[in-house]
Amino acid sequence: MCASKTPAEFLTNVISRPVVVKLNNGIEFRGTLACLDGYMNIALENCAEFVGGQQRASYGDAFIRGNNVLYISPAK
Amino acid sequence: MCASKTPAEFLTNVISRPVVVKLNNGIEFRGTLACLDGYMNIALENCAEFVGGQQRASYGDAFIRGNNVLYISPAK
Amino acid sequence: MCASKTPAEFLTNVISRPVVVKLNNGIEFRGTLACLDGYMNIALENCAEFVGGQQRASYGDAFIRGNNVLYISPAK
Amino acid sequence: MCASKTPAEFLTNVISRPVVVKLNNGIEFRGTLACLDGYMNIALENCAEFVGGQQRASYGDAFIRGNNVLYISPAK
Amino acid sequence: MCASKTPAEFLTNVISRPVVVKLNNGIEFRGTLACLDGYMNIALENCAEFVGGQQRASYGDAFIRGNNVLYISPAK
Amino acid sequence: MCASKTPAEFLTNVISRPVVVKLNNGIEFRGTLACLDGYMNIALENCAEFVGGQQRASYGDAFIRGNNVLYISPAK
Amino acid sequence: MCASKTPAEFLTNVISRPVVVKLNNGIEFRGTLACLDGYMNIALENCAEFVGGQQRASYGDAFIRGNNVLYISPAK
Repeated sequence: MCASKTPAEFLTNVISRPVVVKLNNGIEFRGTLACLDGYMNIALENCAEFVGGQQRASYGDAFIRGNNVLYISPAK
Repeated sequence: MCASKTPAEFLTNVISRPVVVKLNNGIEFRGTLACLDGYMNIALENCAEFVGGQQRASYGDAFIRGNNVLYISPAK
Repeated sequence: MCASKTPAEFLTNVISRPVVVKLNNGIEFRGTLACLDGYMNIALENCAEFVGGQQRASYGDAFIRGNNVLYISPAK
Repeated sequence: MCASKTPAEFLTNVISRPVVVKLNNGIEFRGTLACLDGYMNIALENCAEFVGGQQRASYGDAFIRGNNVLYISPAK
Repeated sequence: MCASKTPAEFLTNVISRPVVVKLNNGIEFRGTLACLDGYMNIALENCAEFVGGQQRASYGDAFIRGNNVLYISPAK
Repeated sequence: MCASKTPAEFLTNVISRPVVVKLNNGIEFRGTLACLDGYMNIALENCAEFVGGQQRASYGDAFIRGNNVLYISPAK
Repeated sequence: MCASKTPAEFLTNVISRPVVVKLNNGIEFRGTLACLDGYMNIALENCAEFVGGQQRASYGDAFIRGNNVLYISPAK
């Protein structure tokens, strides 16, 4: 059972874990969730960008503007 | 008859129940509604992603940014 | 003549009546308007979803996020 | 000459008159402007919906969410 | 040289003059700028609507919701 | 090195200089930056409109609503 | 490990470094991050614009309106 009371707590619990971040335009980022804020602005570390399941680029760090985020999920 | 006076109460009553969450882009999530907030930011547990009725992925947990939500319905 | 002074009053008068809710993406919901708030977030009961005049799904209850609403009309 | 000092006054003067309301998606509503608010949320009476100049539906009353409004003009 | 210190002043100086108002969707309105507010909500008088350079309609008055405005220019 | 501490200062330094303003829809305006505000609402003087590198129109003055702006650059 | 506690700190640490700025419409800017603010409004120096991996233009300075930003990454 999810121990979080709010979605914000849910996300705080995922910090420093590997995540999948799917954007509105279909791009997917995979990396470590370094930090985020209440707008879902996200800083990722050691991340890679995927389109249609194919890796397109890799980044040391990347900042993603929150309004582009569709969903965030801890990587399995 | 719906016992809720406001849509927010309506949603609070659905917490911890299985729900269908349809997004603006046509993607559908099915899972347990762990928690949500006033922006319709949603944390789902044991969820799966469907496109055109076909399952595309499954997630332990997923956080969905509220602006992408089209509707939420308790699963029948 | 409409007895309402504001659109919000107009909508309050429709609560518990059957309505048609048309969304920005062309989807139409038909059901009983259980409650709504100032953002046009809507809870419907005993509702069905139509696309191009064809029923696609039915729901016991459904919550629709207000930003997707195009118009609401009492069903004739 | 327009006697209104602000667009809001302009619209207040049109209340209870027949209007054309054009939406962002090209749909046109024709009816009597019952009331509106500062977001351009609009309640129309005795209205009909047109697409490409063809009538598609008629409504006793309809509430239109303001963000969908492109322009409003008194019917000639 | 533009005597205005802010874009709002710029627009105030154009009131009661003939203007071209281009909308996000490519529609162009030509008419007299009756009044406007800080959201760029605009009331035009004696205006006509153009698409691709062809006149499609004329209106005595028209109210345009500001979020649809791309640019406004005094007519030459 | 950019002497500005904030993007707003950056833009203030460009006032009265020739600029290129690119809009979200691909249209490009070239003219003198008369003034702007915190929403990126822009008044241009002696400006011309380009689409795909071809001039489409010229204006004495033009007011551009800030939400349509993609980027602004001093003309070389 | 990312030393930043918030995405805003993350971005502050990138100032004066070469960055890649990807926009919502697929355009990519490469240049030195001169400054930015809380809306992700960005001033770049010595920057170039790429579409589909091909350079299309170069600018001494460019101001990018924050709502167009998809992600920002320090250039490798």
